[in-house]
Amino acid sequence: MNVVMLLYPNMTQLDLTGPFEVFSSVKQFNVHLVWKTLEPVRDTHGLTILPTVTLQQSPQADILFVPGGPGQLALMEDQQILTFLRQQAEGAQYVTSVCTGSLVLAAAGLLSGYRATSHWLSLEQLAYFDVEPVNQRVVVDGNRVTGAGVTSGIDFALTLLGKIRGPEEAKMVQLRMEYDPAPPFVGGSPASAEIELVDRIRTTTQVFQQQRQAVSEKVAKKVRK
Amino acid sequence: MNVVMLLYPNMTQLDLTGPFEVFSSVKQFNVHLVWKTLEPVRDTHGLTILPTVTLQQSPQADILFVPGGPGQLALMEDQQILTFLRQQAEGAQYVTSVCTGSLVLAAAGLLSGYRATSHWLSLEQLAYFDVEPVNQRVVVDGNRVTGAGVTSGIDFALTLLGKIRGPEEAKMVQLRMEYDPAPPFVGGSPASAEIELVDRIRTTTQVFQQQRQAVSEKVAKKVRK
Repeated sequence: MNVVMLLYPNMTQLDLTGPFEVFSSVKQFNVHLVWKTLEPVRDTHGLTILPTVTLQQSPQADILFVPGGPGQLALMEDQQILTFLRQQAEGAQYVTSVCTGSLVLAAAGLLSGYRATSHWLSLEQLAYFDVEPVNQRVVVDGNRVTGAGVTSGIDFALTLLGKIRGPEEAKMVQLRMEYDPAPPFVGGSPASAEIELVDRIRTTTQVFQQQRQAVSEKVAKKVRK
Repeated sequence: MNVVMLLYPNMTQLDLTGPFEVFSSVKQFNVHLVWKTLEPVRDTHGLTILPTVTLQQSPQADILFVPGGPGQLALMEDQQILTFLRQQAEGAQYVTSVCTGSLVLAAAGLLSGYRATSHWLSLEQLAYFDVEPVNQRVVVDGNRVTGAGVTSGIDFALTLLGKIRGPEEAKMVQLRMEYDPAPPFVGGSPASAEIELVDRIRTTTQVFQQQRQAVSEKVAKKVRK
């Protein structure tokens, strides 16, 4: 099976590297990291990763995957990328994302009519695209499988692996990765966090989130036509 | 604060990319990815990352960090790397690792007399180096902070961040990363996993684990002299 994972400038690297760890440890999966060129791609915080194939070189994806991050805004208006995703999605067994990667899939028209999730700060923006936002860590709707914010990528990938290769193989990967998480603090989601901290994050990200919303609204008008 | 994270061929990338996501999101932290050259470094499963500094260019670490992975065996006998780690550790506030990175620190003599952890398959090998193996996800002993296998890197980094910048800042990072894990299966540690799956992993990794043990025994003799 070919796993085609999109890389792009200013992505959030853990959205991708979490699922990469799961998928790349499966013998039957060939993982490809795809971008426009083979030049190094820098994430939003300075981790630079090399693509393994260009858009043109990419094999047909069995699993198509898009991570999130601030760079997602540019992708939502990038016709070359949106066309690539649409073409790949036609032949893919699963069309998937983590974090705000779901907004890119939505911008390509690939989530219309589906239920999906995203990072909690951006979840509601899915509704612009005729997508039902679901406040859940991993959402499976037909062959669309989406994960919530950043770290949910590990839960997402193990869930998908369990569907494809069966629970036993997914459990083996989970055990090899020693995935027995023990967050040192309570409050990893808005539901469990102190309301003051949720508010502070909303305030400090407000300007960027308004930009993101403006792009979503603008692009959604074209998608819904 | 300078966070100096060692990259090396055949590391396990998530050991590093989990903590990178935490540390790189903190304004007061400058994260450096260090290796012998600036050439791309390929992890054990095909993710290729660019170093940001060479050993010679590296600033003095405030946090010194070593990830694990199969490539750790070669590092344990690499005098250039062991010397670098010893020199850096002298001026560092924290000397840290995830997974079998602790065996590299031990090989450099940096964990002698301390309590520490490692991946569950390799935990007992720490004892060769006069280190007390602790079966715990994150172990803090003085300024030595070690994490268990692979995914524990996220718990490790949030714990360390909480110590350095206070729990509130660590909680903010946790919430932004939506770290509210929900493993899809029970059994992410040998204590909770089906015994048959634990045995199967022990069997399939036996040859490599014997190599790892032989290197640990050999290197430990020199360290204990």
